[in-house]
Order: sequence, then structure tokens, then C-alpha cells
Amino acid sequence: MGFTGRQIRSTVRATNEGDGQLELSLATVEVPDPGADEIVVRIEASPINPSDLGLLFGPADMRTAKASGTASDPVVTARIAAGLMRSVAGRLDQSLPVGNEGAGVVVAAGTSKEAQALLGKTVGLIGGAMYSQYRAIHSRQCLPLLEGTTPAEGASCFVNPLTSLGMVETMRMEGHKALVHTAAASNLGQMIVRLWHADGVDLVNVVRKPEQAALLRGLGAKFVVDSSSPSFMDDLVAAISTTGATLAFDATGGGRLASQILAAMEAALSANAPEFSRYGSSTHKQVYIYGGLDRSPTELTRSFGMAWGVGGWLLTPFLQKIGFEAGQKLRDRVSAEIKTTFASHYSKVVSLAEALSLDAIAAYGRQATGEKFLINPNQR
Amino acid sequence: MGFTGRQIRSTVRATNEGDGQLELSLATVEVPDPGADEIVVRIEASPINPSDLGLLFGPADMRTAKASGTASDPVVTARIAAGLMRSVAGRLDQSLPVGNEGAGVVVAAGTSKEAQALLGKTVGLIGGAMYSQYRAIHSRQCLPLLEGTTPAEGASCFVNPLTSLGMVETMRMEGHKALVHTAAASNLGQMIVRLWHADGVDLVNVVRKPEQAALLRGLGAKFVVDSSSPSFMDDLVAAISTTGATLAFDATGGGRLASQILAAMEAALSANAPEFSRYGSSTHKQVYIYGGLDRSPTELTRSFGMAWGVGGWLLTPFLQKIGFEAGQKLRDRVSAEIKTTFASHYSKVVSLAEALSLDAIAAYGRQATGEKFLINPNQR
Repeated sequence: MGFTGRQIRSTVRATNEGDGQLELSLATVEVPDPGADEIVVRIEASPINPSDLGLLFGPADMRTAKASGTASDPVVTARIAAGLMRSVAGRLDQSLPVGNEGAGVVVAAGTSKEAQALLGKTVGLIGGAMYSQYRAIHSRQCLPLLEGTTPAEGASCFVNPLTSLGMVETMRMEGHKALVHTAAASNLGQMIVRLWHADGVDLVNVVRKPEQAALLRGLGAKFVVDSSSPSFMDDLVAAISTTGATLAFDATGGGRLASQILAAMEAALSANAPEFSRYGSSTHKQVYIYGGLDRSPTELTRSFGMAWGVGGWLLTPFLQKIGFEAGQKLRDRVSAEIKTTFASHYSKVVSLAEALSLDAIAAYGRQATGEKFLINPNQR
Repeated sequence: MGFTGRQIRSTVRATNEGDGQLELSLATVEVPDPGADEIVVRIEASPINPSDLGLLFGPADMRTAKASGTASDPVVTARIAAGLMRSVAGRLDQSLPVGNEGAGVVVAAGTSKEAQALLGKTVGLIGGAMYSQYRAIHSRQCLPLLEGTTPAEGASCFVNPLTSLGMVETMRMEGHKALVHTAAASNLGQMIVRLWHADGVDLVNVVRKPEQAALLRGLGAKFVVDSSSPSFMDDLVAAISTTGATLAFDATGGGRLASQILAAMEAALSANAPEFSRYGSSTHKQVYIYGGLDRSPTELTRSFGMAWGVGGWLLTPFLQKIGFEAGQKLRDRVSAEIKTTFASHYSKVVSLAEALSLDAIAAYGRQATGEKFLINPNQR
């Protein structure tokens, strides 16, 4: 047997001028025969998530992207500023495969019972290198999809569903009672709205445009705040005051949004405080940055007392913290609700080569506006 | 009996134009007779710490400070930008006393055994309103100073000593093995250097000038990094790499320093990592901001993976967390080492009225350079 297929690669190189260059291209790879517990999946759908862009683009300035190569063998290059090269010292000159998650059909399986049971099944899978025609993987990294679920429907069954469930769990574990989230009209944002609605928890939705606010209100969202409105800060304080939110998950990362959220939480807390404290409210306010839609620096004005924290939040360490069994409960819920609570929507389906067109690349940065691409590596 | 004395007051008012005004002045107050467990202390020394400036100045722009009143009854006013008024909503129109800590002689005591035992003694005390001639306070909020310790020597026996000890405890509680601190040449910075030296823990000292670096090396500091040097980032990475520091306490707060420290920690960690991880090192890197010498926004470039946190750190919640007994051990150590490890140095001693001169006010912001004022409220 043995499968041979193409996959997307990302390489960062240092130039003689001290800055760097990103190169995106397609490679042809042979998939090794599966070990006893492994399977080989023919990938038929893999989303381009914001969380894929870090590895795909590195710190390159994609406005400098140039296309070369051929239609079936495209090559894209882009510049990396000298000051950012320190952050990619660990990946220099390595041709890295990309793609966190995907779904497809199991076309080969190892000898173990678990692996054999998956043969011919449609599964979701996670583990990187999904922008590939074939992927060998441990059977434990797969989520068998229920009968009647297509690869396109199951393509995003890990990152967004488990992230949205991880936010609920984090909120409960850290003792908060309501949550603020940003880029609330994105695919993930809409999923959070549906999930919160299902679970009956108060949620403050921050969007950047009036039409996004309308969209979320249409989904039944109760507290929607538009950062483009002149009354944004007042609206945010009011929504936070009503819900009592002291935790936020921010998908944008850059600019002043995290700072504004902390300031609004502090204003809501101190408005309800019996007396003035010079150090601000003693209630801890936390913003977790889990995405980087805005790659500019995070700017914190620190006008929110001393009981605050801002930090990175990542799905994998969260799942490690709660352990396999607790994680399995979350995965089972995703599988059961993949067409409802955890449904994803895509604006375009592309082949591996089309995924590297300059038009497609320009669109990946606009995901908060609802544009979302699905790659079908086996589409011609 | 009954004591009457003067004290410094800070008041914030909204103006008709939407911005605000800070007013500093002296008030005359009568000190109530002490309750059973209380004492009255004639304050003879109280430092102007960076941690006092938040309450003293609020968010006012002190470059706009104007003096009026008389030499013995000075009044200082300064402007507060409209955008910052939200952060002082809780203190509007309240005439607030200032001064976190001080030392003096017990001139009256309540009927309890504990209070009576302190009569005539020199004590350090904490609890606010220390820029006052007399202060009534619970006997538990005092630290009796050893025979031969003067009020000036004991004036700073809480904030800086317990903060430096709190950093060691926090480092151990959160599982780090070495620490970075900034404004390392300040009074507190030098105390940390002496304490770390005594306790044999690795410490990376960040200063802003070559002469500060020389000063600390003279105190025996091993890893000193000067942020004004062109090789700052390389020096910082090298020092962090050698010590393995993954925790920092930042006194400045504003600008890019916290971000640079996280980036240096990440560079040190990934240089030692076996393989590249797209999300950066999985080792948590933490910066606690405990001061605001630089009041500009904190700017985080987020070029340090996802396992990071930045947050406020404050002494009082830390002491509450560890409990009274653990805190008492720290206080006993301070009392025993107040002339050595925990010694403070002042550049000038001023009266209450002199403390409100424009020259003095301008100097309070320059504490990182070694200028530090001590108020003697009973000095004419």
C-alpha cells in the first residue's frame, strides 16, 4: 500500500540584510504505513482558523506577499521585519506542515482493535499537518463522527467547539459568573453565543460593526456592545454591571480592547462599592487573550486598580489541566451537537493550491468579518 | 487629654468643563481618645513612597501643578484629563488623608494590656493617614521597634521590606527559581538586592543608567542589565538564560519593559528547547506590575508565545493570602534587620507644609533615580 500526497509547507529563512523571508509552497510526501494504533485519513476538509495563521504566516507582513511558481505548484513569499526574527529563531530553515484540525475518511488502519474499528469511518482529527491529502495519526487523536455527518460538517470539531467549552469551564473553575468575549460575530463567536444560550450563562458580546450587532441579536444574544459606537464605553460598563462579568476572552489581542474591558469591569465594580479604595476594587479582573486578529501591541492603560491580570490562553494546556476523562466528556458533547451548537459555516472551499493564492491569503486576516475558508486537500 | 494636629489632604473635584482638578492642602483634625486596644502615635517620620502617589496625586498631570495659599497653609492644584475622571468616580469631592506608613512615639494608649505595653515606645505603623501629626490606630497595626531604633530608621518598616519579602515568597509559592526586577537602583530595589544576596537566590537587576548599574555592582549584584545600553535585549536574554528566571516584578509599569522581559524569557526558554513549538514555550512566564513609575500605557508586543501573564501585585492582598502568622514571621525579620537588610535612605526631610512645595512635588516622580523624601509632621 502506502499513500503519497501533497501538503502545504511554511518556511522562514534569514536574509543577508538581517530581516527574514517567509515561503509558502506545496511538498509531496509519502505517508508511512500505520503503526498498530494508527490510522491513515484521506483529509477532505480542513478549516483555516485564526489559530493556524501563527504557524502559516509566522511574523511575516502579508501585505508584502508575492506569488510565483505555477498554478499547480504555487509559491508565495513575504517579508519579515528584522526586529521580529528573534521570535522565529526556533523554526529557521525548517519546512513545516500546517493545519491544526480536519476531517476525512479512514483509508488504512493498524492492527489494533481500536484502529481497525475506524476503517472506512468519517472522523475528525487534530494534531497538525492537516493541509495534506493524507495524514497518519494515532487513533486517539480522532473523534468518530456520527452516521450522517460529512467531513465538511466535522472539519472544525476540535478547536472552536472545545475552545468555547473551555471558556465555560475556565469561568467556573476560576469563580467568575459571567463572561465578556470579543470578535463575537466570528464563527467561534457565534458558537459561543449558541452555547451560552443553551447553558443559560450571561454573556457580553463585543463586536466591531452595527451589522454584526444585528446578526448576534438575531441569534438571541441579549448583551451586544458595538466598539464602533460613540457610546461604546458606557454601553460596555452597563452590560458588565448588569451581568457581573469579571472574566473576558479576547480574540483580537492588539490595541486597547483588553484595557477597555478591564476599565469597564473596574468602573462597574467601583460604582457598586461602599467606599473608595485607593488601589481600586479588590475583585480580580481577568482578560485571557486567545487569538491575535489584531497583531498590533496590546496597550494597557492600567486605569483599573491593582487586582487584574492579562495573559495568554491556549486550548491544549487547558485540556491537559482538566485531564483526559473530563476532556472526553467535552468531545462527546461536540460530536452529538456538531450540526447545531457547534456548527461551523464557511464562505469558500478551496484546493491546496488555491489556498495559496494571494486572494485567499488576503482573506484569512478578515475572519472576524465572517469570511472563513475550508480546504479540501483532495479537491482538484 | 485629646490631641489636635495637622494632616495632608487630597481632594478630586469635577469641573464644569468635564475635566477635573486635584487639590492638595493641610487640614486640622482632632484625634479621638484611643479605644481600649488603640494607641495614639506622634508621627515623626513618614516616607513618600511611589505607592503613596496614587492616592496623593490621583490621575492628575502634575506638570500642571500650581501653588497658592501661604507658606504655613499651602494649597496645590493640578489638572486631571477628562478621559481619566472615570477612574476617580469613587473619590470625588472627598477630602482624603494620605500616607501609608510611618513611625513615631506612642503618646497615649487605651486600657488593654497590649495598648498599655506600647506607651512611650517607638513604633512603626501602617494604615494610611500617616502624613499627620497624630494618628490613633489599633495596636495590632504597629511594629514595636527594637531599643535604639529611631523613628527615621523605622519609618519604612512595612511597605518596602514586606514587598521585598513578598516577592521571595511569591517566587517560591508559584514555582519559579529566579527573579527579574526593575528600577533596581531605587530604595526598594537596593533592599531586594541585599535580601536576595542574604538568601542566595539568583536575581536579574534591570536599571536605566550606567551609574545605577555601577551602584548595584558595588553592592555585590551579579546580574545587572542597563536598559539604556544598545545591547540591552542581548544582555537581558543572557542573564535570564543563566539564572532561569521566569518571574519578574516591574516597578515601572508603563512602556515596553514588561514586554521586553517576557520576550527575553521566551528567547531564553526556546533557545534551550529541543524543538520548535508554534505556540512558543509551554513554560509559564509572569510579570507582576507593582508600581507605576512610568504612567504611560503598558505595551505588550505578544512575541512570547501563549504561556504568559501580566498582572497587578499588591502587598495587602498578598499578606491576606498568606495569613497573620506567616506575616508575623516576616514582620519579626524586618524588625531584627531594620538597620541592615531593610535599611532605607532618604535624600531630604521635610515638614508637612514643605512636602506640598512645588519643588518637592516635582521630585516625588524621580524616586527611581534615588531621590526619596521623608516627612516629619512634627517638624516646624
